[in-house]
Amino acid sequence: MKISVVGATAYTSRELLKLLARHPQAEIVHLGGRREGNPPISDVFPSLRGICEMPVVGMRLDDAPEKPDVAFFALPHGLSHQYVPEYLSAGVRCIDFSADYRLSDLGTYVKWYGEHGDPKNLARAVYGVPELFREQIAAADLVANPGCYPTGVVLGLAPLIRADIIEAEDIIVDAKSGVSGRGNKPTEGSMYCECNEDVRAYSVSGHRHEPEMEHALALAGAAAPGVTFVPHLVPMDRGILSTIYVRLKQAADDEGLTNMLREFYVDEPFVRVLPAGEQPRTKDVAFTNYCDLAATVRKGERAIVTAAIDNLMKGASSQAVQNMNVMFGLDEAMGLL
Amino acid sequence: MKISVVGATAYTSRELLKLLARHPQAEIVHLGGRREGNPPISDVFPSLRGICEMPVVGMRLDDAPEKPDVAFFALPHGLSHQYVPEYLSAGVRCIDFSADYRLSDLGTYVKWYGEHGDPKNLARAVYGVPELFREQIAAADLVANPGCYPTGVVLGLAPLIRADIIEAEDIIVDAKSGVSGRGNKPTEGSMYCECNEDVRAYSVSGHRHEPEMEHALALAGAAAPGVTFVPHLVPMDRGILSTIYVRLKQAADDEGLTNMLREFYVDEPFVRVLPAGEQPRTKDVAFTNYCDLAATVRKGERAIVTAAIDNLMKGASSQAVQNMNVMFGLDEAMGLL
Amino acid sequence: MKISVVGATAYTSRELLKLLARHPQAEIVHLGGRREGNPPISDVFPSLRGICEMPVVGMRLDDAPEKPDVAFFALPHGLSHQYVPEYLSAGVRCIDFSADYRLSDLGTYVKWYGEHGDPKNLARAVYGVPELFREQIAAADLVANPGCYPTGVVLGLAPLIRADIIEAEDIIVDAKSGVSGRGNKPTEGSMYCECNEDVRAYSVSGHRHEPEMEHALALAGAAAPGVTFVPHLVPMDRGILSTIYVRLKQAADDEGLTNMLREFYVDEPFVRVLPAGEQPRTKDVAFTNYCDLAATVRKGERAIVTAAIDNLMKGASSQAVQNMNVMFGLDEAMGLL
Amino acid sequence: MKISVVGATAYTSRELLKLLARHPQAEIVHLGGRREGNPPISDVFPSLRGICEMPVVGMRLDDAPEKPDVAFFALPHGLSHQYVPEYLSAGVRCIDFSADYRLSDLGTYVKWYGEHGDPKNLARAVYGVPELFREQIAAADLVANPGCYPTGVVLGLAPLIRADIIEAEDIIVDAKSGVSGRGNKPTEGSMYCECNEDVRAYSVSGHRHEPEMEHALALAGAAAPGVTFVPHLVPMDRGILSTIYVRLKQAADDEGLTNMLREFYVDEPFVRVLPAGEQPRTKDVAFTNYCDLAATVRKGERAIVTAAIDNLMKGASSQAVQNMNVMFGLDEAMGLL
Repeated sequence: MKISVVGATAYTSRELLKLLARHPQAEIVHLGGRREGNPPISDVFPSLRGICEMPVVGMRLDDAPEKPDVAFFALPHGLSHQYVPEYLSAGVRCIDFSADYRLSDLGTYVKWYGEHGDPKNLARAVYGVPELFREQIAAADLVANPGCYPTGVVLGLAPLIRADIIEAEDIIVDAKSGVSGRGNKPTEGSMYCECNEDVRAYSVSGHRHEPEMEHALALAGAAAPGVTFVPHLVPMDRGILSTIYVRLKQAADDEGLTNMLREFYVDEPFVRVLPAGEQPRTKDVAFTNYCDLAATVRKGERAIVTAAIDNLMKGASSQAVQNMNVMFGLDEAMGLL
Repeated sequence: MKISVVGATAYTSRELLKLLARHPQAEIVHLGGRREGNPPISDVFPSLRGICEMPVVGMRLDDAPEKPDVAFFALPHGLSHQYVPEYLSAGVRCIDFSADYRLSDLGTYVKWYGEHGDPKNLARAVYGVPELFREQIAAADLVANPGCYPTGVVLGLAPLIRADIIEAEDIIVDAKSGVSGRGNKPTEGSMYCECNEDVRAYSVSGHRHEPEMEHALALAGAAAPGVTFVPHLVPMDRGILSTIYVRLKQAADDEGLTNMLREFYVDEPFVRVLPAGEQPRTKDVAFTNYCDLAATVRKGERAIVTAAIDNLMKGASSQAVQNMNVMFGLDEAMGLL
Repeated sequence: MKISVVGATAYTSRELLKLLARHPQAEIVHLGGRREGNPPISDVFPSLRGICEMPVVGMRLDDAPEKPDVAFFALPHGLSHQYVPEYLSAGVRCIDFSADYRLSDLGTYVKWYGEHGDPKNLARAVYGVPELFREQIAAADLVANPGCYPTGVVLGLAPLIRADIIEAEDIIVDAKSGVSGRGNKPTEGSMYCECNEDVRAYSVSGHRHEPEMEHALALAGAAAPGVTFVPHLVPMDRGILSTIYVRLKQAADDEGLTNMLREFYVDEPFVRVLPAGEQPRTKDVAFTNYCDLAATVRKGERAIVTAAIDNLMKGASSQAVQNMNVMFGLDEAMGLL
Repeated sequence: MKISVVGATAYTSRELLKLLARHPQAEIVHLGGRREGNPPISDVFPSLRGICEMPVVGMRLDDAPEKPDVAFFALPHGLSHQYVPEYLSAGVRCIDFSADYRLSDLGTYVKWYGEHGDPKNLARAVYGVPELFREQIAAADLVANPGCYPTGVVLGLAPLIRADIIEAEDIIVDAKSGVSGRGNKPTEGSMYCECNEDVRAYSVSGHRHEPEMEHALALAGAAAPGVTFVPHLVPMDRGILSTIYVRLKQAADDEGLTNMLREFYVDEPFVRVLPAGEQPRTKDVAFTNYCDLAATVRKGERAIVTAAIDNLMKGASSQAVQNMNVMFGLDEAMGLL
């Protein structure tokens, strides 16, 4: 399978290239980015020395030395939709890391992100959580790879929504993310001395992943999902822990809820439901495609679901590879264990 | 003022000794602890070399070379009440860091901590948040220094409770603490390689600070406070950020809520209310007695109050010194700026 | 290939099991350790859930459900030689992580480690740096997996020693290690709050890896190597950077020295020599089997060689798998890219 | 004492302002910097809220609302000498944090830093290590506050140089610094995700503090000091540990060397010599003006001196306050304990 990575100089692309380098069916044929002089990607990311040393060329399909079968786009929101259409038109299946194709409602997109340059392909895009939307992904030629925060939340809540036991219109999500979630552009807020030994909330008035969570929960079956989402930055490289507070429609206990999660994901290789009483840790999922989940009941009527993922992996690159595997009919875990 | 520190080998005591060493009215006369051979405290904590090098002797009042005016107890829960009574009886005013005198309801104490060895002094104890209970503290001979988690929460919510604008029976507190909150006993959970690059929730089924928060909020004026509290461990030495989710009884906005906090604390030297739109950071309060607060309104009816303190300082040692200053009629900020 | 891992509850074993789980030729048949009730290893290391969930049973060969072809021993020094002989006698090839078979001179072993319980097998053991001793390893039935500190140092210096351009009797090694090098036993020195925001030297009067370095450099061809080694603990999970100060026998420059390293390792998949002017970073080798090297000349006569490895990987587990691949005639990189 | 801080928006200035705010004799009258709209310094550094909220105005003496008695300059190298002369001319005593007045030899300055705009004041400047040059500092009107790296090194070696027991022409300094040493300008190299979980050497071919160390050691009495200096970046906010390798002219032991250090600094409040066998830790000096020292002898002829300081404090701001105290005849420890 010939592969193009557009936006190759993002942190998520670095992880993606490491995954593809050891994927038995993947052959990288094109790295697109904006670096003067077409340097090898290993100059940008020295950790790729000996793993992938292709030059970073232009981002257009014309820039690709060979026509790819699939293209990954790790571009900022608002930029992807400038590149995706030409790849799609040429028959290249696309997996987009940005938000550009995640929200099927154009009005919501415009409200949170601004104008959309490719509205007609919005309808075509499939929201890429393989555990929930596997069949649609298999058939899709455009997959919107989910946001890092929504991934853990929708995996944690989907079983409870399908069982209709939570009040989906009043969900609180308190999430804690490592600093790589900020991307690799140097800013004051991403400096070591500003992030180390610090915890802070941000985007408390509203974060773009909040409407995406509501959209994803609706796709998972919730009637009118309402989420209050507050992200926090914690001093670590990678990982997101989401602590999700929901009200139960009927009393339950830890074992009951845990069993509900376990049964839902019994055949899933990448969702691990922890025994009642244990809690997921971001460290245990770091550098993997796993999502670890736990559920706890308080006073019979409130449930606390916790979900841990690696934001660069299950929250971005490894989930994208999982989607690719589904799209091309490969073993879904290929290259991911 | 002559001072005894009982339980001198706790992390909180190390911070307390640094504060007392530069407090113009404080004279340490006795360090009590359990170390063989009465080593100087600077052998236990090398950072105290040149600052405080007194030997650690026994914990009884008899062990003190001089009778103190005030004694600080930094002992585990269940141990303080074995020592406090004899100091009190001898006329030594006591400031206790443990939970032993924080909950005025004996039944609640027994439920969460087990038997209480000194129930008669429970009634005598004053809950030591100077900003809220200054007059009682000034008159007290036994002050229960608040828990680290409740401190930020009660400071963040007290103005809203006094104004009666929140539904106090349904409060969610999601708190993130540095690792020093675990104390200085080596355990698997406090090892560097278990805590670094990790975030995890703990005591999700119920943490002892939850009833203390409800007790403190009741003292602050709430009729029937109900708290769902979930603490998390984040990879940093010190600091607690509490993200508090409440429902408003009436619509409000960021400015209104922020002004309410600002007016409430206008004369307080150690509570800093941030401008609407900004968020407190644990880094900004590290090594200080400050509590930084912010309030944000979502959809008119839910408020998110965030509170940052240093768990070893405002959450323990510097708040204890502030209490001492109040008890002895000193300038409340003496030695704390 | 059937595999036994003895001492399965060490940090290095956790990494080893992850590597073996995705090694196409490896089949784990036995985990030996000391845990009551034979828990699955995934109870000890939750990150292994779904990856390896075998029970931890006894450490004797009799405890193995099936006879292994090869056994890895991740036991403390002084314990390995109690188990290795019986495996060897039964024809199981052994790879030992401890120091027990690293020093061929019994006197030196006794001086630094105490009595040796299996001196006769010392002579049989091969020091397992595949880049230097590949042929002996291929033929060995007992490989002493090198210490984490010596690995980077001997890889960094071997080319210069073989070219006879350094004064090997006066080498200074200043090494900086992540905290996982301390192992997973809770002690005061391995607590988060003692290691975070701290750098310290340790074993300054002499560390056991100093004689091992001298031994390894002698194996690499140095006549009378003399090393002054000072290790430091830095606040990170994993990684060792060794900064090595040597005197040159003749003037050289950065390019010359760099070329010498590059030519020496030109066919090696796991040693990356950086361009002159660049410096290795532990982050770039984390979670990999790479050793990154650079050489710099000062004033024509002093050279500074820097070497970065992941102490748990090239400094332990992945180097052990590399040794296994060599011993069994497999592609040396199998399961390691 | 009226004080001007020029370059108020540097990390070192933030620390300086905290120190001055609690210094009983200090009155800040002027903050100079380059921020549009003259924001209060607490907007730049929120941790200064309630501590110092003066506006940041221009950097010229004319911009100061009141004429200061002393001015601190926390400007980049090459900028200080554009401002210092006018303050000096007006009779304001100056303490400069940059390298501009540290090297008395103009040629050396030009080689490492470029043109010097104020060569005539070079001769006037005193190198500000109070423990070594107290009398000159007391009389100076221009003090060059030492670099962070040279501070620990010169304090560690001065006693041995004065005793003439080391070969000063061949000193190796391997230093490990926290990230705040890079300053507060966002660059790729100072990002959290580049520094966390990483150790790297930098400026291996030559760092500007190397000639400063040689200069300072000459001032301390060395005939022809020669230093090979390699700095490293380690993942922590603050602190420098210098590991210094020297050859002894005559055999010695740990106790002898330790006593030599201890006697040299017996009356110094801010240098703590550790007992033989113990090692300084950056954590123990963090947020203080202390320099902790230890000495170890290897094989009778090589000594390893280790020195720990807080780079922002003894390596910059608190040493500057100590210098101010000396210059103005105050208790040298005022405001620093």
